[in-house]
Amino acid sequence: MANERPQVVIVGAGFGGLWAVRGLAGAPVDVLLVDRNNYHTFLPLLYQVAAAELEPEAIAYPIRSILREMPNARFLLAEVEEVDLAARQLQTSVGPVPYDYLVLALGSAPHFFGVPGAREHAFTLKSMEDAIRLRNHVLGRFEAAQWQQDPDARARALTFVVVGGGPTGVEFAGALAELINGPLRRDYPDLDFRSARVILLEAQSTLLPGLPERLQQYARRRLEQMGVDVRLQALVEEIAPAQVRIRAGEVIQSDTVVWTAGVQGVPGADRWGLPTGRAGRVAVLPTLQVPGHPEVYVIGDLAYVEQEGRPLPMVAPVATQQGKAVAANLRRQLQGQELQPFRYRDRGTMATIGRNAAVAQVYGRSFTGFIAWVLWLGVHLFNLIGFRNRLLVMLSWAWDYFFYERVVRLQMPRLDPDGK
Amino acid sequence: MANERPQVVIVGAGFGGLWAVRGLAGAPVDVLLVDRNNYHTFLPLLYQVAAAELEPEAIAYPIRSILREMPNARFLLAEVEEVDLAARQLQTSVGPVPYDYLVLALGSAPHFFGVPGAREHAFTLKSMEDAIRLRNHVLGRFEAAQWQQDPDARARALTFVVVGGGPTGVEFAGALAELINGPLRRDYPDLDFRSARVILLEAQSTLLPGLPERLQQYARRRLEQMGVDVRLQALVEEIAPAQVRIRAGEVIQSDTVVWTAGVQGVPGADRWGLPTGRAGRVAVLPTLQVPGHPEVYVIGDLAYVEQEGRPLPMVAPVATQQGKAVAANLRRQLQGQELQPFRYRDRGTMATIGRNAAVAQVYGRSFTGFIAWVLWLGVHLFNLIGFRNRLLVMLSWAWDYFFYERVVRLQMPRLDPDGK
Repeated sequence: MANERPQVVIVGAGFGGLWAVRGLAGAPVDVLLVDRNNYHTFLPLLYQVAAAELEPEAIAYPIRSILREMPNARFLLAEVEEVDLAARQLQTSVGPVPYDYLVLALGSAPHFFGVPGAREHAFTLKSMEDAIRLRNHVLGRFEAAQWQQDPDARARALTFVVVGGGPTGVEFAGALAELINGPLRRDYPDLDFRSARVILLEAQSTLLPGLPERLQQYARRRLEQMGVDVRLQALVEEIAPAQVRIRAGEVIQSDTVVWTAGVQGVPGADRWGLPTGRAGRVAVLPTLQVPGHPEVYVIGDLAYVEQEGRPLPMVAPVATQQGKAVAANLRRQLQGQELQPFRYRDRGTMATIGRNAAVAQVYGRSFTGFIAWVLWLGVHLFNLIGFRNRLLVMLSWAWDYFFYERVVRLQMPRLDPDGK
Repeated sequence: MANERPQVVIVGAGFGGLWAVRGLAGAPVDVLLVDRNNYHTFLPLLYQVAAAELEPEAIAYPIRSILREMPNARFLLAEVEEVDLAARQLQTSVGPVPYDYLVLALGSAPHFFGVPGAREHAFTLKSMEDAIRLRNHVLGRFEAAQWQQDPDARARALTFVVVGGGPTGVEFAGALAELINGPLRRDYPDLDFRSARVILLEAQSTLLPGLPERLQQYARRRLEQMGVDVRLQALVEEIAPAQVRIRAGEVIQSDTVVWTAGVQGVPGADRWGLPTGRAGRVAVLPTLQVPGHPEVYVIGDLAYVEQEGRPLPMVAPVATQQGKAVAANLRRQLQGQELQPFRYRDRGTMATIGRNAAVAQVYGRSFTGFIAWVLWLGVHLFNLIGFRNRLLVMLSWAWDYFFYERVVRLQMPRLDPDGK
């Protein structure tokens, strides 16, 4: 594979990495995309895998299918272990990979803010394995409650605590409540559902911080109508096996604590000599380059960029736009042109709560209810990769909508037989 | 759950157990179905999961969905650890389960015939986890071959050995050859596919023993046309890491050996005092009852029944018919009527080889090629449970047929990161 063209290595096949690769199609470079999975995960719908609404395959897409139309791009399935900025080389699980230009789009990991027991005892929602493990566990708790004779243990099995009132926490709490009150009620006719509870804990005084107050209050009201116990200013102090302690001193007994309260840049970047700051993110120049390393770009959740004095959020649209921007800047750099500073165009934010219920802020306008929900459906279907995946997702959503049914209530495969 | 009605416990939600439950709908009994999984697996299509043709969800169906329409049936997710025939009680992973009548439909496990290393180093195709593990491994071997510099190691990665020329071996070898020669060739444009081989080893002198000679020869010819290296009278002597030794003294270097050469009744039955014979199967009376235990029935792969002096094969149609028969006999038994001996109606056997190619023997008539293939498709779609699963399977098959594409080329989820 000897050649004279510069080698661009892009690490991470999330939104940032994928759009960076696409933006380099036909450019006079060889692109190598490195990821630990052979598929791209559509993370905005991951919570629906965890809520037994979608099969994992519906939100995964083979990376090699995406690259087939790009003769100048190749793929390497590997874990990046180290970045040697001086030698311009990566250490990976399958050997060293040299680069001329590097784009790090490694994404984020859960941020536990040092809460004792959170890392050990809470479920997270950052990867396909996380989602499958959580789905299997939730379904398993109902199976356990069915034969459990001890009422306390049964209540613990049927109590689900979601930590974090951001979009992921709100969406998962809503989806979980609908799963329990619809399909699972029909699955377990003998079970007393009065002890089945979904509790959403948010440390701040409102859900969906950052959205207009009208949307925050709508989200809270709808969740409460769906039976979710929303608790604001409820800071988690400690998570132990089968219980959560919140600041008020209250202890909630629960077999299932899902942590969605924080994200940080993937660990490791500081070790490699990259300038990491708050939440482990790499502070980059406005051009998305690493200071002192014009050949290294960082994009997506791992990049720390401020705009109008505020850090950009760690969300898919930022990563997508940065992926496109980095490809454009790389093309400029190759031609000796001046690079352009990245500018995020915020089209809006949306979160779905349940059937016919969502909140959306689009180009500064606020929507709630059915309109927001249809907007949310459309945007997510449009952004999914692959016609077949769109079809699968539509099929599952239609099934749910018309038959109040979740078809993938499967504890499958067994990842760890003993559970968490 | 105290009640006066007899408790029928059915262990295993495969074809036998499921049809037994269905046959008891509305009967004056309480039925408890016990399985280690919360879903029914459509095993005849398991090899297509392993060949990245179908997603696991397409051939799995939630057991509780099946039981919803049966008010007298309940489900218990548990592993059966012991059967206490004297006390009429099961020991399960979640506690004791008493029964008045018991139907054991536990199925089968791989039979290695004592071949050294087979259990430790070969992949099997008996459960969803098996199929997912094998699919991930096969795809992973191509990823490894892509960066592997050592030509011997690369050849080992790209050599796939299927042991057993029965229907499962023939079907998987064909599906694997089509996966490799179609989608994977396009996925790995840089890879030299001359070293990619599928080798099918059969100890006897023909593939598909038991079928008419014309079908056997057709199957062999078609597999060879598809590039499968078919070796007859090739008895496996030993399987070691990355190699297979066959009787002729020849050693095949391969990272992937798939064992489909034999099945036996699930282990354990002998321990519980059931009269097990050849291949660990329980010899039952013609009524499917265990001798000396009129309240215990054994059906499906675990049951040993002779008809016209020959043992019935361990296949889905036998299990299905026995499930129906056992339900009918239980109804007779409850009413004090005389039980009926089971009689298997053999409608035929079929195996698919690849695109437009299958063999089928139906009511004594033989078919090959396109007609047999269409028959095979129709029978399998018809027997799948659930409208959505049929839709999913049809969708995947249509995609494959028209676009020569396998859409679920996903190494997901990671069951054991280090592989086998």
